[in-house]
Amino acid sequence: MQAEILCIGTELLIGQTVNSNATWIARELAALGISVLWVTTVGDNWDRLADALGRACARADLVVTTGGLGPTADDITIEAIARLMGEPLAERQEVRDHIERVFAMRRRPLVASNYKMALFPPSADLIRNPAGTAFGLSARHDRAWIMSFPGVPMELKEMWATWARPQLMEAGGGGTIHSVLLRYVGIGEAQLADQVADLLEGVNPSVAPYAGDAEVHLRVTARAASKVAAEAMMAPVLARLRAIAPYYYGEDDVTLPAAVGGLLIASGQTVAAGESCTGGLLTSRLTDVAGSSQYVRGALVAYMTPVKTDVLGVDAAVVAEQGVVSEAVALALATRVRAMLGADWGVGVTGWAGAAPGLPADDEGRVWVAVDGPGGADAQEWRFGGFPREVVKQRATQAALDLLRRRLLTARSPGT
Amino acid sequence: MQAEILCIGTELLIGQTVNSNATWIARELAALGISVLWVTTVGDNWDRLADALGRACARADLVVTTGGLGPTADDITIEAIARLMGEPLAERQEVRDHIERVFAMRRRPLVASNYKMALFPPSADLIRNPAGTAFGLSARHDRAWIMSFPGVPMELKEMWATWARPQLMEAGGGGTIHSVLLRYVGIGEAQLADQVADLLEGVNPSVAPYAGDAEVHLRVTARAASKVAAEAMMAPVLARLRAIAPYYYGEDDVTLPAAVGGLLIASGQTVAAGESCTGGLLTSRLTDVAGSSQYVRGALVAYMTPVKTDVLGVDAAVVAEQGVVSEAVALALATRVRAMLGADWGVGVTGWAGAAPGLPADDEGRVWVAVDGPGGADAQEWRFGGFPREVVKQRATQAALDLLRRRLLTARSPGT
Repeated sequence: MQAEILCIGTELLIGQTVNSNATWIARELAALGISVLWVTTVGDNWDRLADALGRACARADLVVTTGGLGPTADDITIEAIARLMGEPLAERQEVRDHIERVFAMRRRPLVASNYKMALFPPSADLIRNPAGTAFGLSARHDRAWIMSFPGVPMELKEMWATWARPQLMEAGGGGTIHSVLLRYVGIGEAQLADQVADLLEGVNPSVAPYAGDAEVHLRVTARAASKVAAEAMMAPVLARLRAIAPYYYGEDDVTLPAAVGGLLIASGQTVAAGESCTGGLLTSRLTDVAGSSQYVRGALVAYMTPVKTDVLGVDAAVVAEQGVVSEAVALALATRVRAMLGADWGVGVTGWAGAAPGLPADDEGRVWVAVDGPGGADAQEWRFGGFPREVVKQRATQAALDLLRRRLLTARSPGT
Repeated sequence: MQAEILCIGTELLIGQTVNSNATWIARELAALGISVLWVTTVGDNWDRLADALGRACARADLVVTTGGLGPTADDITIEAIARLMGEPLAERQEVRDHIERVFAMRRRPLVASNYKMALFPPSADLIRNPAGTAFGLSARHDRAWIMSFPGVPMELKEMWATWARPQLMEAGGGGTIHSVLLRYVGIGEAQLADQVADLLEGVNPSVAPYAGDAEVHLRVTARAASKVAAEAMMAPVLARLRAIAPYYYGEDDVTLPAAVGGLLIASGQTVAAGESCTGGLLTSRLTDVAGSSQYVRGALVAYMTPVKTDVLGVDAAVVAEQGVVSEAVALALATRVRAMLGADWGVGVTGWAGAAPGLPADDEGRVWVAVDGPGGADAQEWRFGGFPREVVKQRATQAALDLLRRRLLTARSPGT
């Protein structure tokens, strides 16, 4: 099946909105084994929309549209499809009732133009919208199956999950598509791809690498008659990919902070951070995870040197001798914050996030991370030169989280 | 002038990459007064690229392409344009020299396929690439002016700024487009748009509202013979928009943390934060600004209650009586961290970032922010219910930064 995604909305043509819907739908269709060959964007304009719709229905088997389903005069998608099909618009009672229910629930005034959203070409099927007012449409024209969704991402995703995904699965011969995202840290995309080069050539299950934010992902996808059958097909591939140690850390929605949190919960331990160049970002990422108040005690962000020495008790002589970005200071941040906040594990980060007066260019992006905990202290030096401040900060937190993760793994299984 | 943006690359069709280039170019063209009527995306495929190129050149005055300029077999943009123009490819010595220079500088091995990037149709002009290896092309076909750029965003932006923007400015009758982005916090988009409704109807200068991340932006754009003339046309509009107090806070790249930083530098004062639910994000945002080590002393992230009481010295009786999310605790966080870290200003944040066991649904997203400094202490309650954790955290930092900004403004001019 060959598909075209047709996005409708002037806000996409003036650069006001990034077209993340197209990316999302493209990924969904790829996971269903459907090839997207064209993505077309036009504004809220009769002639250009009619032209784009007609062409899409002549060249694609599946045309997915987003946008232009609302109540205002510039929302013209449904009427343009009706004209293409040569059908008049007729009101659907079901949609009229839904609109009235939604407005009553939200206690908002219902004006006449809202009823426009109840008008559809008679031969079309409706796509219910559990997350909003505007229903979508499913219809046939020329060689194509047309599906229309609202442009609001939350509504599109809800309608896709409840209606389009099962419909397309069935159309693709029934069965199911099962997919797992494996996450790796501390290894480059090319290096990981090299290690699994033979698997990347597989078709069912397929394995595809993606570059993440200072990490790498592998998506494993299988199509089979049932979920159990798909899982059985994937099992040997997953077993091999999960054994790529110490880089593999989690799956699907489990971010690196969540993986670290899982290890802390399993061991019943807590963590505290002594942050300098990351300015609190490390602890902020740890606390992005629901339930993190079980294991994150807190942090001291010691941004200025006197805070490091006078508040946290880092030895001023060490700072003077070794420099503020040094193994000794990173270790002291970890050890001191662990004691001060009463945590099982202390993490320290110090570095140059960007240019500073008198700083040699070679030192920009130089970062030390350290972990102190049961079994002693460790430190690592990293160089993130050439990146903007925010990227240096993000990579430094990634390095610190990974060092902590590896220490937690070692503490759990002393034999490895 | 009517434009089409044509994006080439299979990675865009499988949902691997968000098409941020199209958004960026659309915004640039809008600022130049050029209407984008179509955005088309095709993969690295001869037939579909030829079809899309031919159609674009037949319907648009300007066709901007991105992607497909590299050395590998699937980079086919230049050859497809040459075929469309009916010209053979010929090597350009200038590009060959550039490629050899770049590879020598980076000490990377130069393989034969790299020389493919030196092949262009003879009638085309070259667009130099100061940021990479692949040159772009400028040519005429049918009714259109074709411009081709690489898909790497950094290279595209550099080539656009140094070549395309001045070329298009000149083609648009010379003169210049001048644009300023005004930033507002603490006011909604609709409310701000209402206040300036008459200005939104203006054409030259034009004023357009954009929703930012818990803030609102107005872009003011003028076209005139010179920058000085454009500034003169904009002056009365800018004066009115800058006077929208206390919401207006900065312009162009000046983020809210940077605006707060500017006020702190001007007053020669420092800040420290006592963070609970934001987990360090407030201080991380403050330290995203280059030079923030002049005024950010640091922070105590007191995530667990014992850290608030035992380390920071918040009164345990107050926590027990008022609750951890209360005006009293926010004020204590601000006051205690100010004293502990020796800062002129202390900021406190406490709240429920998400659901918690036993927490009434109504309390989710409830946040108290406080500021203590010269002239006393202030606190505000906010409700960010219904948003995911990360959004509650971001909005809480925005509220805290805005409270600090307003206190700094009042301290600077006691009369206002």
